[in-house]
Amino acid sequence: MRTVFWDPDSRLLKMIDQRRLPAALEVIACRTAAEVAEAIRNMTVRGAPAIGAAAAFGLALAAQESRAADPAGLLADLESAARTLRASRPTAVNLSWALDRVLKSVFIRESATESVDDLRRQALAEAQQIANDDVAANRRMAEHGVALIDDGDVIIHHCNTGALAVVDWGTALGVIRLAHEQGKHVHVLVDETRPRLQGARLTAWELQQYGIPYEIITDGMAGHFLQRGQAQKVFFGADRIAANGDVANKVGTYMLALAAHDNGVPAYCVAPASSVDLSVEDGSEIPIEERDEDEVLGIQLHGERAAPAGARARNPAFDVTPNRLLTAIVTEKGIVRPPFDVNLPRFV
Amino acid sequence: MRTVFWDPDSRLLKMIDQRRLPAALEVIACRTAAEVAEAIRNMTVRGAPAIGAAAAFGLALAAQESRAADPAGLLADLESAARTLRASRPTAVNLSWALDRVLKSVFIRESATESVDDLRRQALAEAQQIANDDVAANRRMAEHGVALIDDGDVIIHHCNTGALAVVDWGTALGVIRLAHEQGKHVHVLVDETRPRLQGARLTAWELQQYGIPYEIITDGMAGHFLQRGQAQKVFFGADRIAANGDVANKVGTYMLALAAHDNGVPAYCVAPASSVDLSVEDGSEIPIEERDEDEVLGIQLHGERAAPAGARARNPAFDVTPNRLLTAIVTEKGIVRPPFDVNLPRFV
Repeated sequence: MRTVFWDPDSRLLKMIDQRRLPAALEVIACRTAAEVAEAIRNMTVRGAPAIGAAAAFGLALAAQESRAADPAGLLADLESAARTLRASRPTAVNLSWALDRVLKSVFIRESATESVDDLRRQALAEAQQIANDDVAANRRMAEHGVALIDDGDVIIHHCNTGALAVVDWGTALGVIRLAHEQGKHVHVLVDETRPRLQGARLTAWELQQYGIPYEIITDGMAGHFLQRGQAQKVFFGADRIAANGDVANKVGTYMLALAAHDNGVPAYCVAPASSVDLSVEDGSEIPIEERDEDEVLGIQLHGERAAPAGARARNPAFDVTPNRLLTAIVTEKGIVRPPFDVNLPRFV
Repeated sequence: MRTVFWDPDSRLLKMIDQRRLPAALEVIACRTAAEVAEAIRNMTVRGAPAIGAAAAFGLALAAQESRAADPAGLLADLESAARTLRASRPTAVNLSWALDRVLKSVFIRESATESVDDLRRQALAEAQQIANDDVAANRRMAEHGVALIDDGDVIIHHCNTGALAVVDWGTALGVIRLAHEQGKHVHVLVDETRPRLQGARLTAWELQQYGIPYEIITDGMAGHFLQRGQAQKVFFGADRIAANGDVANKVGTYMLALAAHDNGVPAYCVAPASSVDLSVEDGSEIPIEERDEDEVLGIQLHGERAAPAGARARNPAFDVTPNRLLTAIVTEKGIVRPPFDVNLPRFV
């Protein structure tokens, strides 16, 4: 099952509810672009490539919803829906990229003055293509990246970058999965990835499905294992990559990459070219979403919230890993090595 | 109220049950050395100086329990109890230091062939002295360290180093507390400190008592705030400091100190001289306790465990911060600056 997919019978967008995993594997349906925006905002769907595809299908839903009588009216409705979707999460660039791709494909047809229904079909077809392209790009990333993994490697992995983070297969976790399928012995130390625990909940669940051995660690433990020589590689994904190779990714990635660098352990970012944003020169320009403090404060032990009543929290959802800490960036077009400011634009 | 204290009426050791905070402030009583060892092991009492004092009182209880008819018999019982207590937690050296101090004080009296009751009184008196000395040392650490804090500082703090971690007052948090009492405006970003959440539970609770403004962050967020210039100081304690200044402390400290160093932010370790172990040359020789995986896996969201059924975890409770990442070590004898291998032995 794909993480996000179009159901041709109901003509609805369906997606795995990632907030419920691993306790339950449930699929929810979105009927409108506004519902898709809310699903992105509340992290029913998460992972930069997955929210890109979801947003693209959101525009297909907006086209379906639209009561416009002519192409210009439909385009206005799509642009309005795109604004709502674009605002749902600010850091991952795949969201904007996918929206722009659908809008552009519809604009091009509109100039040929096709019917409103033609444009509706075009929006859906482009969203479908984005989803299919994502799956293909994931496989190619894995084929390039698998050469970086050696038999016997212990790999520290941050957040979730598996099938659940994309349409299907996975980015960083997809590389690890292919290595496992090729018979390489790998063991994953899974950063639990506070605050939303995408590692402990989603990556652990995926690794169990794939039969890949793993152990969960808290985010602060990675440094200890790296220092003691007990991990040979570090892998993570990206929500946006600046032109110079700085990587915005789930909060905690910077400290992990720093600990890898301090111990001479290679750190690899795996992401599709659609995560690269050449319009931002370096990571300092990437907006960092700050989410509700309850994501930090809601953690429980024995059914009780850990923090005292009245406690406040901060919750930046991402951080920026400077390019100097990265060994390579793996995209579907190949493995990009430093200097990233020179080499990365060639791969996009 | 002290975190650990001798109750002269019941002749029992009493301590705040730190597993129940902040939900409830409960005091439990230990009747035997074995009960003290168990309270240290299960973290009813934690914090290197606090477990040192608790272990010392544990020997006072062992002396009280002993049915020995002569001084030699009592000493044998004390040595047996000391072995049990010493094994309760391996990383913090204060525990061994306090046990040795009580044993030595009793041995010295024994050579004067005093009565068994005299030796019982001596064990208790020495434990009391250790507790009193700890409070005095904490105040002196704060008086030395407060000069390091500037008005307006935002300080990232790891684990709990407050009154709960010692007999009374606190080490790193004691410095912050004195700065606040002196009228300096400070704001603390409290590392929640997974897995046992000593930051979110205990430090947040203490800061509320003291009226010091704070916000909880997840451990992986510290790097983001340091990188964006939103924190000016980093403070933590120590469980054991090697002769060269390498610091074993709660897991996550190494990654925090590394992020501070990467951004030119000073990182300060505050600990009593009893945490310095000149018998270990560097941090690689310090034993790192690995605790039960359930401390990692037991975390809940909405009353459900986050990790999938059958998940496994690793749980090293401490890590080692290399001396090159420290700006200074604050002890009750003064502020120690690099080179630590030269300067630290002068302060012990």
